[in-house]
Amino acid sequence: MFKNVLKEVVDNTEGAVSSILMGFDGIAVENYSKQDSEFNAEDIAMEYGVILGQIKQAAESLKVGVTREVAIQAERMTAVIRLLNEEYFVAVMVLPGGNQGKARFLMRTRANKLLENLS
Amino acid sequence: MFKNVLKEVVDNTEGAVSSILMGFDGIAVENYSKQDSEFNAEDIAMEYGVILGQIKQAAESLKVGVTREVAIQAERMTAVIRLLNEEYFVAVMVLPGGNQGKARFLMRTRANKLLENLS
Repeated sequence: MFKNVLKEVVDNTEGAVSSILMGFDGIAVENYSKQDSEFNAEDIAMEYGVILGQIKQAAESLKVGVTREVAIQAERMTAVIRLLNEEYFVAVMVLPGGNQGKARFLMRTRANKLLENLS
Repeated sequence: MFKNVLKEVVDNTEGAVSSILMGFDGIAVENYSKQDSEFNAEDIAMEYGVILGQIKQAAESLKVGVTREVAIQAERMTAVIRLLNEEYFVAVMVLPGGNQGKARFLMRTRANKLLENLS
């Protein structure tokens, strides 16, 4: 079921190559890759996942509320990340020039479906 | 001159309330606020600025290239951040429902103007 959602998001986002559902403990629940890529979604999600924990804490101390989404755009890859709950997040890797906005939209609208199956 | 660009970005982005040009050392060069807000742009930029440094390092170790942009969307405030060079970044604070895409576009197209005056 997770795989279907991860595939749906990637296949319907121009420039997206992979997606992953991961716990903040760095353990992947499921992932999907559309094509071979020099970048491994799990490596990226693990590295950024550690930083997400710090962003969550910073947002709390700033009183701006719960962190919903983080996008990190680097020269060769953008990671669009949606925080699902205290334990899990989902990330989509998008190539330069891809449609980040579509990835955000699809993850936002599919978040509940993922959450239902995580609890 | 910095003030003009910071003001231009905020005034032309729906939902934007403030912007700031800051060094990675946490020292603000200039800032602009359109309206009084319970959130202080400098506090937010300082907190997130520390994390930006870690994102830069993570991106380098992942070999995805130089980090260009980071967006952090929390319940009550979104920070759209453009990394200008090794020393400085510019951030725009946008209220929920505001136009993040416009903020990104304006910062991207004004980045060179800021950079010219930072060197």
